[in-house]
Amino acid sequence: MIILIQCKDNVGLVAAISGIMASKNINIMSMREYVDGEAGQFFARLVCEQSADAQTLLKDLHDVLPGDALININPESQKKIIVLVTKEYHCLSDILVRNHFKTLGAQVQCVVGNHDVLQEICKRFDVPFFLINHKNRSKEEFEAELLEVIKKYPHDYLVLAKFMRILSPKFVDSFLMKIVNIHHSFLPAFAGANPYKQAHRRGVKIIGATAHFVTNDLDEGPIIVQQVIPVDHTYTANDMMKAGKEIEKSVLAKALKILLEDRVFVYNNKTIVFE
Amino acid sequence: MIILIQCKDNVGLVAAISGIMASKNINIMSMREYVDGEAGQFFARLVCEQSADAQTLLKDLHDVLPGDALININPESQKKIIVLVTKEYHCLSDILVRNHFKTLGAQVQCVVGNHDVLQEICKRFDVPFFLINHKNRSKEEFEAELLEVIKKYPHDYLVLAKFMRILSPKFVDSFLMKIVNIHHSFLPAFAGANPYKQAHRRGVKIIGATAHFVTNDLDEGPIIVQQVIPVDHTYTANDMMKAGKEIEKSVLAKALKILLEDRVFVYNNKTIVFE
Amino acid sequence: MIILIQCKDNVGLVAAISGIMASKNINIMSMREYVDGEAGQFFARLVCEQSADAQTLLKDLHDVLPGDALININPESQKKIIVLVTKEYHCLSDILVRNHFKTLGAQVQCVVGNHDVLQEICKRFDVPFFLINHKNRSKEEFEAELLEVIKKYPHDYLVLAKFMRILSPKFVDSFLMKIVNIHHSFLPAFAGANPYKQAHRRGVKIIGATAHFVTNDLDEGPIIVQQVIPVDHTYTANDMMKAGKEIEKSVLAKALKILLEDRVFVYNNKTIVFE
Amino acid sequence: MIILIQCKDNVGLVAAISGIMASKNINIMSMREYVDGEAGQFFARLVCEQSADAQTLLKDLHDVLPGDALININPESQKKIIVLVTKEYHCLSDILVRNHFKTLGAQVQCVVGNHDVLQEICKRFDVPFFLINHKNRSKEEFEAELLEVIKKYPHDYLVLAKFMRILSPKFVDSFLMKIVNIHHSFLPAFAGANPYKQAHRRGVKIIGATAHFVTNDLDEGPIIVQQVIPVDHTYTANDMMKAGKEIEKSVLAKALKILLEDRVFVYNNKTIVFE
Repeated sequence: MIILIQCKDNVGLVAAISGIMASKNINIMSMREYVDGEAGQFFARLVCEQSADAQTLLKDLHDVLPGDALININPESQKKIIVLVTKEYHCLSDILVRNHFKTLGAQVQCVVGNHDVLQEICKRFDVPFFLINHKNRSKEEFEAELLEVIKKYPHDYLVLAKFMRILSPKFVDSFLMKIVNIHHSFLPAFAGANPYKQAHRRGVKIIGATAHFVTNDLDEGPIIVQQVIPVDHTYTANDMMKAGKEIEKSVLAKALKILLEDRVFVYNNKTIVFE
Repeated sequence: MIILIQCKDNVGLVAAISGIMASKNINIMSMREYVDGEAGQFFARLVCEQSADAQTLLKDLHDVLPGDALININPESQKKIIVLVTKEYHCLSDILVRNHFKTLGAQVQCVVGNHDVLQEICKRFDVPFFLINHKNRSKEEFEAELLEVIKKYPHDYLVLAKFMRILSPKFVDSFLMKIVNIHHSFLPAFAGANPYKQAHRRGVKIIGATAHFVTNDLDEGPIIVQQVIPVDHTYTANDMMKAGKEIEKSVLAKALKILLEDRVFVYNNKTIVFE
Repeated sequence: MIILIQCKDNVGLVAAISGIMASKNINIMSMREYVDGEAGQFFARLVCEQSADAQTLLKDLHDVLPGDALININPESQKKIIVLVTKEYHCLSDILVRNHFKTLGAQVQCVVGNHDVLQEICKRFDVPFFLINHKNRSKEEFEAELLEVIKKYPHDYLVLAKFMRILSPKFVDSFLMKIVNIHHSFLPAFAGANPYKQAHRRGVKIIGATAHFVTNDLDEGPIIVQQVIPVDHTYTANDMMKAGKEIEKSVLAKALKILLEDRVFVYNNKTIVFE
Repeated sequence: MIILIQCKDNVGLVAAISGIMASKNINIMSMREYVDGEAGQFFARLVCEQSADAQTLLKDLHDVLPGDALININPESQKKIIVLVTKEYHCLSDILVRNHFKTLGAQVQCVVGNHDVLQEICKRFDVPFFLINHKNRSKEEFEAELLEVIKKYPHDYLVLAKFMRILSPKFVDSFLMKIVNIHHSFLPAFAGANPYKQAHRRGVKIIGATAHFVTNDLDEGPIIVQQVIPVDHTYTANDMMKAGKEIEKSVLAKALKILLEDRVFVYNNKTIVFE
């Protein structure tokens, strides 16, 4: 059983929480706690050997914690995700392979693409693919069709695995901190379109990728994972793009791992990650 | 106030510890806890906003913890180190500079060298340097003179900053987990002498450095920090040595930082590091 | 057209080689040259804009180079590989995906496994899979069957993508510098079996993977690529193994890339890699 | 003898250059060549075993190269630098230590500071320090005094080792590609003031440093070296600044190394670095 707690900081929080666990004879295998001193905010993640009745535990915890406490008790059930793509295969394939061999930490419910090029690979892995064309249609129409598909499948997260469309504020607001995107640059450098072209023009010696939650400030959502690789003058923008795909794949995989293991808090447009 | 606790694992340890803190109205700013499941061993590090009377706190903690508990209450006083060197300047100079600008996290009490080449740089920084010749003398005589110097100065750790002599079992035993060494390879690869020559002959693509506690198994003590850098076929053994100095300097600096901040436990010849 | 040249070093080699190219009006887009000063050996890789008749060019180059010169003129045709596996899917899947999307730089001819667990994923990608059982059979019988399969398919390299059997000296000798292996440790640390268990016991702070050519000294062949990732005390041997799979996959992919792009020389049991 | 050549690309350049070397019986120990295909520009760096009369060689090379060729023949004499600082000691100390032990690859002629805090450390290393106050004075007056000091000392480069003033366009123009700066962020992210505060606010998971040539577009000059280190939610802006100092020091050291070894070309506001 994994428990996430976030609330206003106070003396005695750890004692209160761990006291409840001890009283129920639950062994805490690992506990991570962090206080954001500036914000006066307390974050804790507990991994417990035994499970307890979630309803009772929730009530008992709320009784001893500040009124604003956010408490998340996660049974170890499988999580579920829906993947959105455009044309690039590298992130999607990596997810499909892990899903196929049951090492993703989630079940891929379906894949939605605004192009049909990735339909074939989904079929090879027996994962439903929905083509939702964006051409000659308003964003409202596109998203209405998308929502219909999403409603059919249970889901914990929407994963934008190189999905190259910008979602509407209304859509994003209805999935807050539930949409994960992989951006092909080391944000905040090269936000927006064509980051590799920008990077090549600037002559940087490192390129990177950023996995972040999607908010309505483009490429400004809370960052989950960032990684970089060295490049040099011999890289064309195209070479950077190719090398970048490897790091994009790796960063998205890492972000999904820690997200699906319930290791991520969000506060003040930043993430607290207990790795 | 920083508190380190290590004992046999049990249900309720976090509750017991944090309960005592809460009862004394001490706010835990950050708490790291880890259970080695295989060994059934519990480790915790608490950073507390306020200090408490160490004697009383120690007694109160022992009252609620298993009989074997090791408890370390560290007031925030300055730590003290003695540095041992041979001829290479890079690690020593880095330590002397940080010591001079008071960012080392410790005071360098003195430097002992078995050659005189580094005497001059110590003088520039007004740090006492003792030359203890190892030539034409037994190890016993050498270490007897060394011990005399060491006795003159209070010290928490002996830092071997490229000290190229092997200390006797008797000496090492009397400073267990108090001697830190920087080894110029990525251990356990290339233990022993001339690691860069070995690395060059083997044609590795990465070289590294390892900071570890000294035990009587040569280069087999608990590892504190390791880092690596890429090399390629153009590196001679000498080039590797030059490049390696940068990483040795960096690894020793990192190891001293976490050690002097009381972030390191040792168990089963391994370190638990709460970074 | 890519040209690889290796010979005894001499004054005027670059002039001689580039002179021939200029006389044929061939533009050298990129030229990398390296002299191993200790060994007195010269290595060069030329990427030329235009192609030339290979036979004539070979003769012209041999005319101006020392008698021992090894010259490799690579037309830009697709390379071919055969992949050997046991049970682990991560390296194979990565190769199959790249092969499927034609970004591997080679065609996977077939996969050979000594267990059947990976048969299914090969079928999904329409790649022939041959099960060659090693149980209750001599190594000779096993390799005889393996050779039969290999003979059926043209191949530039055999890729051991987590193939957990040791090949016989006779077999290895007949494919010298044509067999690439991914070893799940940072060689020479933890050669042999169970490297992650060894790494866990030693308490290292970094784990790695090594892609190397297979020779008859186990895990002692020329190293092509090495990479590492940080680990800490919270990793069990099993966690290290999981984390290691990511780096194994990445290192093998990188090694195949540079190998298939004709960027690797071997000399004195070491590789010269022009990246 | 090291030779740098930059000119319009053409068939036969390598042959022409290496032919001249061969005709003079000069052995090329290492030659790096790169063609920027988009720009049609050729770059070469030759390390030759023997030296030749620079005047004659220069003429001979110009005779066979395009009219616009930039040719730099570097005898292996010691380079000279002047260091500008404000208050932070970490980059300057690293330079002073290397200078003291003659491993910098250059001689530090003098240090100029707009504050006096670093005067003392310069004195310890017997390096002249000039305090040039910027308060209550115009930039013109400040730079006039600076120029007077600079004129006194021969110099190949001015190194801004955490010099926190912006130099005037006139000053910069008169030292084009001769001023190296260390910027405390991963450019182009967080250009301008207070990069660590910006990084903390944005919640990045990696921070970095950039060594670049100074041009009159602030923080937009050609990038020489960039490196990064991971950070997490526990870092305050101040912690980032402390951790950043380590990487700043390392990046500036690396940039100086390759610069002083004549490994850097500049073209189109980018660097070509032959490492």
